Amino acid sequence: MSVVDSVEILKNRELTEEEYFQAAVLGWCIELLQAYFLVSDDMMDGSITRRDQPCWYRVQSVGNIAINDSFMLEAAIYWLLKKHFRQSPCYVDLLEVFHETTYQTEMGQLIDLITAPEEHVDLSKFSLKKHRLIVVYKTAFYSFYLPVACAMYLCGVPPSYIPSTEPFSSTKPVHPYDVAKAILVPLGEYFQVQDDFLDYSAPPEVLGKIGTDIIDNKCSWVINTALALVTPEQRKVLEENYGKKGKLEEQRVKDVFKAVGIEQKYAEYEQNAYETLTKLISEVPEGTKETELKQEVFTSFLNKIYKRTK
Amino acid sequence: MSVVDSVEILKNRELTEEEYFQAAVLGWCIELLQAYFLVSDDMMDGSITRRDQPCWYRVQSVGNIAINDSFMLEAAIYWLLKKHFRQSPCYVDLLEVFHETTYQTEMGQLIDLITAPEEHVDLSKFSLKKHRLIVVYKTAFYSFYLPVACAMYLCGVPPSYIPSTEPFSSTKPVHPYDVAKAILVPLGEYFQVQDDFLDYSAPPEVLGKIGTDIIDNKCSWVINTALALVTPEQRKVLEENYGKKGKLEEQRVKDVFKAVGIEQKYAEYEQNAYETLTKLISEVPEGTKETELKQEVFTSFLNKIYKRTK
Repeated sequence: MSVVDSVEILKNRELTEEEYFQAAVLGWCIELLQAYFLVSDDMMDGSITRRDQPCWYRVQSVGNIAINDSFMLEAAIYWLLKKHFRQSPCYVDLLEVFHETTYQTEMGQLIDLITAPEEHVDLSKFSLKKHRLIVVYKTAFYSFYLPVACAMYLCGVPPSYIPSTEPFSSTKPVHPYDVAKAILVPLGEYFQVQDDFLDYSAPPEVLGKIGTDIIDNKCSWVINTALALVTPEQRKVLEENYGKKGKLEEQRVKDVFKAVGIEQKYAEYEQNAYETLTKLISEVPEGTKETELKQEVFTSFLNKIYKRTK
Repeated sequence: MSVVDSVEILKNRELTEEEYFQAAVLGWCIELLQAYFLVSDDMMDGSITRRDQPCWYRVQSVGNIAINDSFMLEAAIYWLLKKHFRQSPCYVDLLEVFHETTYQTEMGQLIDLITAPEEHVDLSKFSLKKHRLIVVYKTAFYSFYLPVACAMYLCGVPPSYIPSTEPFSSTKPVHPYDVAKAILVPLGEYFQVQDDFLDYSAPPEVLGKIGTDIIDNKCSWVINTALALVTPEQRKVLEENYGKKGKLEEQRVKDVFKAVGIEQKYAEYEQNAYETLTKLISEVPEGTKETELKQEVFTSFLNKIYKRTK
């Protein structure tokens, strides 16, 4: 829906049936890209369930064929783009942004896999810097930048323009895709930090699932923030208990998280992220044409996720 | 090298350094595509070695990360195409032919995996028709049509043209990519039949590897041809011994292959394939410009593989 919503904001009106359809096709292409990643990530992570159902590769007759199935989910993207955008002036831009985002996500997945293999815990590989690198590449590009970039290409936003709203005060060219990326990548990072924190802190009945980041040795914002705050004794507790399968070990890790004041750190992080993003968004030159950026493209995202609890 | 060779034939001269480089980049893109398929096929087949070395996923520190590594091999194709062909008039055609060929190969791999899973032998799923379907989709498009199509796009061969060599006798338009496909797909099928037959018949010291199609339950030309010739008793022998791990079982299968006269059938198949392809090639209108087809594009392939023994 991010593609459709963003196109509506850029055009500042309800969409025609065809415009809605085109935006929706791009939205589905992003869903297919995500499906491609999730089917294969679950195999690489040895996951058991996804959205309360067995992971695709765990279905009896599927097994390792799921690797090829994930490829075909990806191939479907380019089949759809050719079918619906072959004649569109943004066809090549769409192909390229999907290629580039796919590559970025794969790089993020690689860093994640070598930093936090499920079987081998080594907290010396973790850091908040590494966490940001993984989150930006593995999640932010495809789930935040890609839908907005698709909407911008669909609306014919050019690679650069002189903002039309302030003809006398500003002649500096805006590079709208860079502007969008500079906001949406930290926005995606903020979203993933929330995800990490909620995995640790949210009640399962609110979150809709049981958090497993601690027992799965995930390189999450919570462990990385804790590692930056612990005493040597507390670090030892984390090293001995993080990524272990038992309830007891998990509780010991959670006790350290609590002791270092992770809740307070998160509240500070969220406030800071919100203010930083609000300031960044306020500096976007407000356009009036559908080919120019609007601040609302970004505020609509930010308001949807600020202080979310699930 | 098929891309470079085909460009040289189309241009009918030695290439400049830049022309060679561009053809070579496309050749490497096809190698990357093949690497992407082989790294993942080996995982899906549970293979042990590839080209006398451990399969990539079997390297200690790699394991299931090989799935993501195969994705990155694929991503490298589009990175290279963007870097070297972004400004070329054939850029979109190249992107599309790689997308389409990738999708075809994945469909072939899917049919292969559900027809001949390594653990479950069911010869009733096999047939020469199914064999052709697998071979055409899994191998012929990417290893025979794709390199020639890349060479044609690079030389600016248009989707259709009126042959220039016979201005008075022929005004029928030629659709050169369809002509190429109509020859190269059966040529690729012929190549794979050879591969299948050599896996069964060639001495390991000539072939450079030990054939394992029988013990791996492969849907090969040999088993499918035999199944079309066997008595009910011989079929029972095949059903009880094909795809089994023992030397004895393998020998029993080989004995049936021999008894039904597979060598003779292969000689007939090869002669027929050669004559059919030669006739198809002779009907290609000979062009003179670099943007027109030449029969030599196809004869050079055919002569390289006719009666090969390894």
